[in-house]
Amino acid sequence: MSPPYGAPSPFEAHVVRRARQGGAQPPTRVAAWSVTPLQNLSGIITPNGLHYERHHAGVPRIDPAEFRLLVHGLVERPLIFTMEDLTRFPSVSRIHFIECSGNSSPNWGEPKPELTAQDTHGLLSCAEWTGVPLATVLSEVGVKSDARWLLAEGGDAASMTRSVPIEKALDDAILAYAQNGERLRPEQGYPLRLLLPGYEGNANVKWLRRIKVGAAPFQTREETSKYTMVMPDHTIRQFNFVMEAKSVITAPSGGQRLNTPGFYEISGLAWSGAGKIARVEVSVDGGASWLDAALQDPILPKCLTRFRLPWRWDGGSALLSSRATDEKGVVQPSREALLKQRDARSYYHNNAIQTWRVAAEGVVTNAG
Amino acid sequence: MSPPYGAPSPFEAHVVRRARQGGAQPPTRVAAWSVTPLQNLSGIITPNGLHYERHHAGVPRIDPAEFRLLVHGLVERPLIFTMEDLTRFPSVSRIHFIECSGNSSPNWGEPKPELTAQDTHGLLSCAEWTGVPLATVLSEVGVKSDARWLLAEGGDAASMTRSVPIEKALDDAILAYAQNGERLRPEQGYPLRLLLPGYEGNANVKWLRRIKVGAAPFQTREETSKYTMVMPDHTIRQFNFVMEAKSVITAPSGGQRLNTPGFYEISGLAWSGAGKIARVEVSVDGGASWLDAALQDPILPKCLTRFRLPWRWDGGSALLSSRATDEKGVVQPSREALLKQRDARSYYHNNAIQTWRVAAEGVVTNAG
Repeated sequence: MSPPYGAPSPFEAHVVRRARQGGAQPPTRVAAWSVTPLQNLSGIITPNGLHYERHHAGVPRIDPAEFRLLVHGLVERPLIFTMEDLTRFPSVSRIHFIECSGNSSPNWGEPKPELTAQDTHGLLSCAEWTGVPLATVLSEVGVKSDARWLLAEGGDAASMTRSVPIEKALDDAILAYAQNGERLRPEQGYPLRLLLPGYEGNANVKWLRRIKVGAAPFQTREETSKYTMVMPDHTIRQFNFVMEAKSVITAPSGGQRLNTPGFYEISGLAWSGAGKIARVEVSVDGGASWLDAALQDPILPKCLTRFRLPWRWDGGSALLSSRATDEKGVVQPSREALLKQRDARSYYHNNAIQTWRVAAEGVVTNAG
Repeated sequence: MSPPYGAPSPFEAHVVRRARQGGAQPPTRVAAWSVTPLQNLSGIITPNGLHYERHHAGVPRIDPAEFRLLVHGLVERPLIFTMEDLTRFPSVSRIHFIECSGNSSPNWGEPKPELTAQDTHGLLSCAEWTGVPLATVLSEVGVKSDARWLLAEGGDAASMTRSVPIEKALDDAILAYAQNGERLRPEQGYPLRLLLPGYEGNANVKWLRRIKVGAAPFQTREETSKYTMVMPDHTIRQFNFVMEAKSVITAPSGGQRLNTPGFYEISGLAWSGAGKIARVEVSVDGGASWLDAALQDPILPKCLTRFRLPWRWDGGSALLSSRATDEKGVVQPSREALLKQRDARSYYHNNAIQTWRVAAEGVVTNAG
């Protein structure tokens, strides 16, 4: 038999999370990120051991028997919940992606040729999440009629806090305790995280310990000094929750090499925080012409969708791009189009079309 | 940051695979099985570290660079494929369960009260599998018109071999190289396994090294002395491939305890090798009355489906059972009904209704 809890083959030791290369590095050991090796993965599920990480102050060790969630503020009955309380509620399971709002930030400037899909898009993962609908817990405490926003607070050393509109909380928000069948991994918020399907990663507060119901946004550090968007007129836009329609080709992609001319399958991932993916187009000539890719079912809302297009490489140079359209009709923009809507000093929410350059000798590099 | 390849919380160290208790034990260290802790899991995806195992002669260590697949027999062009050859073909990803034909064998006899869902049903797991359709590879070699069966042979020390009907091979069979996004785990056949959706586990040959196309079944050891079915007249039926409609309640289930009366969610898994699950009914009174459970979408063919039913425990004794119906109209049988179709000395393909007994003090035990 294998170990009671199994591990990948030693021949796959290169398929790991690591710090992003070629972009900004995290300032300290505790404020950290790690990126998912998208170029080595198939399908849409990210194995839990490879789910990307973003922490503001390390990973707390929380005993689930000691864990408590306080829900208070504009409610009829403030309550404290244990994990046993929460897991006795009716549950729901849904497959959703989570994407860090800082994903693809290395591509705002001039493209760095050495970057891989892990570097450019690896702050993105997808899992089957299980938990109790937040609406159920809010119904237990009784939300007052003037409630408009929630504060979600994490139990990490950063007390990571975000404001969430009440409409989202009552729609599809989940207090999640399991990912891909098993309980949350420590770095994903064990034993409880907020899951806000389609919202930027940081709003999905991990190690959730407190929800306060209020009448207005709470204007925390993470929505004033951080996680805001720079507009072309240099004003700052707050509360940019929904991750826009986006896609990336994962094969062939940066750092890979085509060894011989002939058939290759172009394959990648598309997603939208607004709903389902409706269409993915692929170009092999730098955007001069586009072909519709096949979408692998099931196509689920706010979930990764795998796309594929057969391609015959003639041995010459090529520019490979993908362009996603979601069910709301939103089309993934070019970098030029995106920069007309944002300041060039932007960091977050870069959903521009990604292009990989295939050189005549088969080497694939990042063309931004 | 967490390790480059992450691990579960130390507080979840009890959630592991282990040998089945209360049933037959594997004869040696190399001919082994391990069972998935279904009672600790949520949703439908089994994390790769907890996927059940069944090996006939240990787990071989295969270097993917050295791996070769030979396809020969009644073909126009016998060919040898490398992993690079196979991963260049168009690929497909699908979420499917795999169930060992010996799953639930401990329940053929008198029910052992101490058994958990892991013991009774843990030779069952579910993953997103990615690979090349077997039909694509067969089209490369050119199957001759008199071909009716394939031999699939594993590269383990047992040379595990099974015959597969050509209709299945050309339908939805996959040469799988990835599970839940990453490459196959060693114990799941790294680097390549046959995936025959809905077929009994052993036919999904692991460490696949050879496919021979023939005109008749190959009558291997695993389909003559093993993996056959004993009929009531004591004759033996071969080639019992499709796993029949089945379900199991995973919470509350054997070994668990209800601490206080009140609301509980009854939750479990249903599946059928013949297609989608159409209905799951739950009884809390030993089958006297049945209620329809809610089915979690997406409901996919030959895949686990999570079902749920709200229940108020009054603190008294109860008998909890679930009954699945698949889209072909096949209804999961009672143990009595199943034993009319099989000999009492049966071992494989026990898809009888499972019942858990809740005692007045809240202790849950196996009632068979």
